[in-house]
Amino acid sequence: MRCARHAPPRPKELHTRWNAEIVARLVAGTTDTLASLGVAPGHIDVVDVPGAFELPFAAQQLLRAAAARGAPYAACVAIGVLIKGSTMHFEYISDAACHGLMDVGLRTGFPVILGVLTCLTEEQARERAGAGADPARSHNHGIDWAVSAVEMALLSQPTRA
Amino acid sequence: MRCARHAPPRPKELHTRWNAEIVARLVAGTTDTLASLGVAPGHIDVVDVPGAFELPFAAQQLLRAAAARGAPYAACVAIGVLIKGSTMHFEYISDAACHGLMDVGLRTGFPVILGVLTCLTEEQARERAGAGADPARSHNHGIDWAVSAVEMALLSQPTRA
Amino acid sequence: MRCARHAPPRPKELHTRWNAEIVARLVAGTTDTLASLGVAPGHIDVVDVPGAFELPFAAQQLLRAAAARGAPYAACVAIGVLIKGSTMHFEYISDAACHGLMDVGLRTGFPVILGVLTCLTEEQARERAGAGADPARSHNHGIDWAVSAVEMALLSQPTRA
Amino acid sequence: MRCARHAPPRPKELHTRWNAEIVARLVAGTTDTLASLGVAPGHIDVVDVPGAFELPFAAQQLLRAAAARGAPYAACVAIGVLIKGSTMHFEYISDAACHGLMDVGLRTGFPVILGVLTCLTEEQARERAGAGADPARSHNHGIDWAVSAVEMALLSQPTRA
Amino acid sequence: MRCARHAPPRPKELHTRWNAEIVARLVAGTTDTLASLGVAPGHIDVVDVPGAFELPFAAQQLLRAAAARGAPYAACVAIGVLIKGSTMHFEYISDAACHGLMDVGLRTGFPVILGVLTCLTEEQARERAGAGADPARSHNHGIDWAVSAVEMALLSQPTRA
Repeated sequence: MRCARHAPPRPKELHTRWNAEIVARLVAGTTDTLASLGVAPGHIDVVDVPGAFELPFAAQQLLRAAAARGAPYAACVAIGVLIKGSTMHFEYISDAACHGLMDVGLRTGFPVILGVLTCLTEEQARERAGAGADPARSHNHGIDWAVSAVEMALLSQPTRA
Repeated sequence: MRCARHAPPRPKELHTRWNAEIVARLVAGTTDTLASLGVAPGHIDVVDVPGAFELPFAAQQLLRAAAARGAPYAACVAIGVLIKGSTMHFEYISDAACHGLMDVGLRTGFPVILGVLTCLTEEQARERAGAGADPARSHNHGIDWAVSAVEMALLSQPTRA
Repeated sequence: MRCARHAPPRPKELHTRWNAEIVARLVAGTTDTLASLGVAPGHIDVVDVPGAFELPFAAQQLLRAAAARGAPYAACVAIGVLIKGSTMHFEYISDAACHGLMDVGLRTGFPVILGVLTCLTEEQARERAGAGADPARSHNHGIDWAVSAVEMALLSQPTRA
Repeated sequence: MRCARHAPPRPKELHTRWNAEIVARLVAGTTDTLASLGVAPGHIDVVDVPGAFELPFAAQQLLRAAAARGAPYAACVAIGVLIKGSTMHFEYISDAACHGLMDVGLRTGFPVILGVLTCLTEEQARERAGAGADPARSHNHGIDWAVSAVEMALLSQPTRA
Repeated sequence: MRCARHAPPRPKELHTRWNAEIVARLVAGTTDTLASLGVAPGHIDVVDVPGAFELPFAAQQLLRAAAARGAPYAACVAIGVLIKGSTMHFEYISDAACHGLMDVGLRTGFPVILGVLTCLTEEQARERAGAGADPARSHNHGIDWAVSAVEMALLSQPTRA
């Protein structure tokens, strides 16, 4: 994800603080994979936001501000964990966050990777963060999100050049 | 949330009048927490709206008018309580309000905090306003919304500067 | 809702013709309440549309045309009754109408009141039009919509001035 | 739907080819009713599209192209039949088509009539095309869509003048 | 799909890598059918994206970049396979992808064909890729998508001329 002719773009990772331990694993999985793909650690910015509803807004503001400074991000991975509770909060937040992240990508022209787990149980979330009770069923989805971010950055950069 | 170089921005709280007693607790939880975080009471505006469907429109109009006056709000907390009834009103209002509040944040560039409870029972709403029958299960979500508002105001202000 | 310094704005009521008797009661409840709140009858325009899907489009066109003529409406109450049938028509119309009315408010800057009942039975609709079998459970929601219209007109007019 | 002072606007009917026999009845019901309401047959354009997902896009492109040519359509009736199958295709297509048609009306300023049946069984669709097993339960909804198109054309034309 | 007076437009196929074998069949069905309809193989571009959430963004960026280069695509077929899992990921991705693809068509003015299967079981997906256990129930939907792409390209090109 080096882009010699531009100010060095960096992937950005945004993540929420709910279910903090699971989120931390997903963030680590994303960051480590980005590094293993050749992205210099100094080129990865990680930003906290309160919850999944704030992810689209924060992504939009940070992507636009970086572009305005002449140091655009190559991609943004929006990471969060939503787990079904007893009210309908899960459904409305999940829907608004997923639609919002789609909109932010389409409006800004920068790739936004959906790193939001929408699980019915906490165990489902742990499995998708590589920390399930059964290692055979565990896989850290942060790995996939990092690969997607690099791939989408490479695909979409020429479309803005 | 002091912003010395700009006209003093204030957080705005919008809230509905349905389920008035629960809403009042949520508003108090938000306001008290904002104050405890150092926001001067004179810098907090509280505005009534009729119901949750009106929250996104009111948020947009007030955020834009304040910015046009040169005294922008730092953030807006939209507070309401929706409880499942016998018709489908709950589902359509909840969905329209959550999508609308997301849109208003993305369109205006000001952080809008989703302070709308979407509950299946009134007891669920009371618990989330810190007034449930079982104190151990009660927590006033207004506290979290105030923290989110301050955090998102700090995160997003430089993106508009 | 008198606005001395502008061309006299009027509230507009839009309503559908499905479930005509129930709609007529809701329109009457809205109109009578607007009058009781001091809105001159000559300042209330009532317009028919075929069904709920047409409400957002009609609201947008009439609000914009009135503004372009220099005689803006202060608010628009969109009234309709949707009742669950055997196909999925109810669900898709309800969703599109509620989202559309939200969008029209946000796009035009004029308050649009959601006067659409989304009921599972006709009796539920009658109760919400003040004509249920059990008077104790009956309440004409048009009364609330009129109050909301006046309140939102007062709240939002300075934001456009 | 004669509009003497403008280039003669025509209603446009768009329809899909899935469930072709039922669609043909709905198109005939719409066209015949438009004629009975005084729209000259030469003023009705009928256009095929592959499926319901294509209706909003085709409506937008044709409405805009006609307006750009100085021969705007007075309205567009988008006709299709969706029937629940074993996958979730029905739900996602129905939702995207209904939202898309709403958006096209709001964006173009031309009335778009939702002539899309969203049925759980084929018999439900036949009944709504006037061809159910029980004639007493059968009614061709194309008749209503034609009436809606004429009504919305009359209502909305002055808003664009 | 030859368009003599313009730079030769090409149909674009975008596809995801999840459920790779089924996707490969759908891509082959689409490509072969485009060829059988007279589209020169050199005029068909096939692009990989990580998953269905990335389809709308990639479609928008590639359609716009091609138009900016003076070599617009005639249409884009977005191909992917989503299968219901144990979390709610399927529902939120399906919804965001279908709405996003609709939006991209409406915003760019280029036809986007929904080639996304939203299935409850893998066997349902295999059947729709022409590889079900029961050949009589198997049909490669790529064939239909190719036909739709050609038809929509022909329908929509004059609307942009």
